[in-house]
Amino acid sequence: MDIFERIAANRGPLGSHSHYAHGYFTFPKLEGEIKPRMIFRGKEVLTWSLNNYLGLANHPEVRKADADAAAEFGMALPMGARIMSGNSNYHEQLESELADFIKKEDVLLLNFGYQGVVSIIDALVSRHDVIVYDAESHACIIDGVRLHQGKRFVFPHNDMAGLEKQLERATKLVQETGGGILVITEGAFGMSGNQGNLRGVVALKEKFNFRLFVDDAHGFGTMGATGAGTGEEQGVQDGIDLYFSTFAKSMASIGAFVGGPEPVIEYLRYNMRSQIFAKSLPMPLVVGALKRLELLRTKPELKENLWTIVRALQSGLREKGFNIGTTTTPVTPVLLNGEIPDATQLTFDLRENYGIFCSIVVYPVVPKGVIMLRLIPTAVHTLDDVNQTIAAFEAIAAKLDKGLYSKQPATA
Amino acid sequence: MDIFERIAANRGPLGSHSHYAHGYFTFPKLEGEIKPRMIFRGKEVLTWSLNNYLGLANHPEVRKADADAAAEFGMALPMGARIMSGNSNYHEQLESELADFIKKEDVLLLNFGYQGVVSIIDALVSRHDVIVYDAESHACIIDGVRLHQGKRFVFPHNDMAGLEKQLERATKLVQETGGGILVITEGAFGMSGNQGNLRGVVALKEKFNFRLFVDDAHGFGTMGATGAGTGEEQGVQDGIDLYFSTFAKSMASIGAFVGGPEPVIEYLRYNMRSQIFAKSLPMPLVVGALKRLELLRTKPELKENLWTIVRALQSGLREKGFNIGTTTTPVTPVLLNGEIPDATQLTFDLRENYGIFCSIVVYPVVPKGVIMLRLIPTAVHTLDDVNQTIAAFEAIAAKLDKGLYSKQPATA
Repeated sequence: MDIFERIAANRGPLGSHSHYAHGYFTFPKLEGEIKPRMIFRGKEVLTWSLNNYLGLANHPEVRKADADAAAEFGMALPMGARIMSGNSNYHEQLESELADFIKKEDVLLLNFGYQGVVSIIDALVSRHDVIVYDAESHACIIDGVRLHQGKRFVFPHNDMAGLEKQLERATKLVQETGGGILVITEGAFGMSGNQGNLRGVVALKEKFNFRLFVDDAHGFGTMGATGAGTGEEQGVQDGIDLYFSTFAKSMASIGAFVGGPEPVIEYLRYNMRSQIFAKSLPMPLVVGALKRLELLRTKPELKENLWTIVRALQSGLREKGFNIGTTTTPVTPVLLNGEIPDATQLTFDLRENYGIFCSIVVYPVVPKGVIMLRLIPTAVHTLDDVNQTIAAFEAIAAKLDKGLYSKQPATA
Repeated sequence: MDIFERIAANRGPLGSHSHYAHGYFTFPKLEGEIKPRMIFRGKEVLTWSLNNYLGLANHPEVRKADADAAAEFGMALPMGARIMSGNSNYHEQLESELADFIKKEDVLLLNFGYQGVVSIIDALVSRHDVIVYDAESHACIIDGVRLHQGKRFVFPHNDMAGLEKQLERATKLVQETGGGILVITEGAFGMSGNQGNLRGVVALKEKFNFRLFVDDAHGFGTMGATGAGTGEEQGVQDGIDLYFSTFAKSMASIGAFVGGPEPVIEYLRYNMRSQIFAKSLPMPLVVGALKRLELLRTKPELKENLWTIVRALQSGLREKGFNIGTTTTPVTPVLLNGEIPDATQLTFDLRENYGIFCSIVVYPVVPKGVIMLRLIPTAVHTLDDVNQTIAAFEAIAAKLDKGLYSKQPATA
């Protein structure tokens, strides 16, 4: 069958909703500067959708650094892959400062997080190695694992007994192949808000020989005494062999980095396909990341403000009977059972009548039958914002209980 | 064997040279604004290494657009994936203008080219489909093909008889599986400078049922009457089902796009993993791309200047007996036979004594035993630059012929 004919007949799990969802539930436009109050379809909404955890996106020093760097360098510089013609003193300075901050020997800056993770995994393993990974790993980890030509074993999310079982299998296998074992998990899972049980994983190093790669996209800047992430939070940063974070969350930018022992980072510097065959991170993003890192390190009040809002929001929702799952990070899922039409009606009501904008997450990001409204608190929300939101959620939950929402998908 | 121990013992094909190459042949720093004369290790060099084909990187209107957009929006906006919270009118405007320019029904903007291509291929094919691809395809195409769970057949670079043979095999196979065939090639190959034989590929549609995906990274802006790329150049843009280009070359930025029939682009919009699970292209890059596209469309003198330099450089090198292969695009490889030490000596001499900076490309980007010095002419080079460069190449070639370069790798 012709590929385009098949595609026209089946638009995929999310695409099948586009006829009513597009521009409202999917591909919405939030306009204005990045702050809790933004404009959606001409009306002001209180926004809980942006991973701007520390409020750096619109911090005056960040805005000035971004503007100044773009004026000084333009967005083109440097051109080419880092290895060919795209290196600079600023790239190296950022790597050095990040290594210092996350307490790793060396750091490699990456041009984009998604392809960075894919290529890290791809570069690390040979066909003789075994990958053991958490079942709820982000899509970029899954794509990296999919490139692996050897065996991959998945363990149930955060289940240490399950991990141990897979490590036993993997250990037997690599005794035959002569390969090694790479365990992959996340520091803070972006959908559930669970912390990866890094302490549990690291403890298994006493029984098994493996290397641990942690994607801490949502933990960097939000977790740990200094904000250095979930490894610091759990006191096991040394046990994480390779520590990754994107700049797309707390750092309010794009790009990413990976830290670890110098020989391994040097190996990645010369062997990651998405880095040696694609353009270097543009200079204004590098200089902007230096400013963001400086603020993240020197302004602990940003993280304190974030957690004040997190605690108020999560305890408030729990008190009103909402199921927010097992989160121990700022990520705040509100889990509802129901079909997509209910969720769209409820979200539509929230946005149009209560002025609350949060993202609606459906299959395949969460399992079928689960509807997740995901709230991302930030350092620039206020306790008034929290109270307004909890009151709105209470009102819509009461309507949902009474069956007041129609069974048709909402459309704008 | 422990993964890190294996890595420490084998740093890979490029990494094994890092002890002498780092900072000079690999990860060099070109400083100053992007133009033919830049600073390398404190000295001015005439640079032929940057894919700034049209000279847009440092065009005053581009620099102003970049600076203004960063000042207005900051680098953080919009946050989140396009589908969740990262959409804007500017993203849609750029898609619409690109679609108009490349004469496709619809265009999808991508947050980065490398992961864009990987996910386009991944989203298009099912395990029942067969991919048939050119042997010299870029790494991002190869990585996309590697994710494919069905059969993939490779044809010798630009060999239409070879392609036909693989299409015969593929056609038999999909008659059994019920799948379709995706042919992948490039418009302008970035190493050899060859154009993909798009006319030949499209002609095979009369005998076989397949869809054609073309990566035109080096052709967009440089090829075709209006600069719309290699499909326009060869008069077969309609026969290209999906047309891709990055912004990292002529457009002097990052990000990318893919254009094609509306239902297929809409499908990709909702099904590309690197796009629905990673952050949207930042606003200053989108607004900057609008300005670049405007100049590319309205200033044909940029492409004319580029080709004046291309013709002078390529004919001059050929006249002096250099092997520049079979290029028919601005990409200008100078192919030398020899081992890496010769090439490093020669490149060192070129840089230090003749003030000419070009990239040295070795295995695994080109085959073992081949040394490629790759020259990228641009619209902002002058004929004096060309003459100076050809004279320098003549001088170093004479030294190489006389065996005057030592057999030790050069170090800085």
